Amino acid sequence: MSHVQQMIDRHSGEALVDASTLSRCIEACFECALTCTACADACLGEANASELIRCIRVNLDCSDVCSAASNVLSRETAADVRVVRAVLQACAEICRLCGDECERHSDHMEHCRVCAEACRECEQSCDALFRALAD
Amino acid sequence: MSHVQQMIDRHSGEALVDASTLSRCIEACFECALTCTACADACLGEANASELIRCIRVNLDCSDVCSAASNVLSRETAADVRVVRAVLQACAEICRLCGDECERHSDHMEHCRVCAEACRECEQSCDALFRALAD
Amino acid sequence: MSHVQQMIDRHSGEALVDASTLSRCIEACFECALTCTACADACLGEANASELIRCIRVNLDCSDVCSAASNVLSRETAADVRVVRAVLQACAEICRLCGDECERHSDHMEHCRVCAEACRECEQSCDALFRALAD
Amino acid sequence: MSHVQQMIDRHSGEALVDASTLSRCIEACFECALTCTACADACLGEANASELIRCIRVNLDCSDVCSAASNVLSRETAADVRVVRAVLQACAEICRLCGDECERHSDHMEHCRVCAEACRECEQSCDALFRALAD
Repeated sequence: MSHVQQMIDRHSGEALVDASTLSRCIEACFECALTCTACADACLGEANASELIRCIRVNLDCSDVCSAASNVLSRETAADVRVVRAVLQACAEICRLCGDECERHSDHMEHCRVCAEACRECEQSCDALFRALAD
Repeated sequence: MSHVQQMIDRHSGEALVDASTLSRCIEACFECALTCTACADACLGEANASELIRCIRVNLDCSDVCSAASNVLSRETAADVRVVRAVLQACAEICRLCGDECERHSDHMEHCRVCAEACRECEQSCDALFRALAD
Repeated sequence: MSHVQQMIDRHSGEALVDASTLSRCIEACFECALTCTACADACLGEANASELIRCIRVNLDCSDVCSAASNVLSRETAADVRVVRAVLQACAEICRLCGDECERHSDHMEHCRVCAEACRECEQSCDALFRALAD
Repeated sequence: MSHVQQMIDRHSGEALVDASTLSRCIEACFECALTCTACADACLGEANASELIRCIRVNLDCSDVCSAASNVLSRETAADVRVVRAVLQACAEICRLCGDECERHSDHMEHCRVCAEACRECEQSCDALFRALAD
């Protein structure tokens, strides 16, 4: 069990949602943040980097937003569900757009294929957590 | 003129909005990010810190989201207006909630008064930029 | 295999170090960043939060620095070893100090015990990567 | 007076250094963070982006580290001078390297000229604060 999961499991406060949905979303956000940072970097290292500008740009944005989301979700004390919802919506939307862009290059660039996968998982985790919060 | 404003003015790409609306919003986001970090810290240093838990928490969240927003807005190359809108909506909403919380303590804590002001300015700048993008 | 590991393995560029040392350090940094965010939050939720101010504060600092480090390390294209070294040194030092502080509360607060562990692992991973770079 | 300066001036805690040296450094770090984000982006938008890979990369790193530094410096409660020093050293070193790289392109790219300036100011502010802490 990762340190992050242990922290969620051990939290004494009132939980907004069940621990496994939450820790899955936190890990998906941070995996996606790092994968997008690495994908922007790998695109930059390609011979045709100048054709990948749109991909690099959305990767950088996606990384910033996923990173902020993973921080917000890691806090459970005195959580305001409206803050969490706003962050999840933005994160899911950006992961969707970044996933779409990376998917366009998936068949000839392995890093974009892996990144599209990370974006899809993060988008789905954010949606699942959003729905769990709405119940 | 700040370095940030100079960068926006000098950008050669196709602008989504006019430079002054954009640079005002970037600066409001980063002012708000740092002010929220400092307000969380000042709350933590108060004798009655345990009564300010809700304020500390929303300050930390607001700082993370404003910081991500200021990064996303600082990028103009190949911008996707849907990414920018999603980030502005989340940022405005969280600034509104953080501003509300800080305002509750404004009359007896100067740092919360200043922070509420920074949150209001950031919320309004995000709303203004969102409207400018929608036209 | 995580998305992050896959990205490191697939990177086409000239590697500064072997892929497994690098991906272990990236994951340790991001695990530590989130664990520190969660530990600051759990401390804030404790009845005796006002006695944990030093712990909360160093947790927040450690989270910011580990998060920056994980981003820098996730980039392999045109890496400057001096940048990487400077970041690793700062990260190892802050993890050491945060680990020390959390360890002081380890026997009566489970979240501090887990967080101390994450800090130690991150410190050691940063040291190991620093040494690998120096060779 | 900016919100950030007001927060520093109003902080009730024991200050490690005088307020103006501190608030100047915080603002320099955040200015530099955003300027580097914008410079990476402007480089990406240049026709010869593929020749600017080294510049883009160090800009992204510098932005991450300056952003973390501005957060750490914005916290004054229970500050550990060893944490602050470690962050300042890393930040000054990376600003120096990023400033060197941007300076190489200063005469034909205005964004690199502005960014080199922001990096120099940030490096000097970090050095000044480091020396003030050592006294």
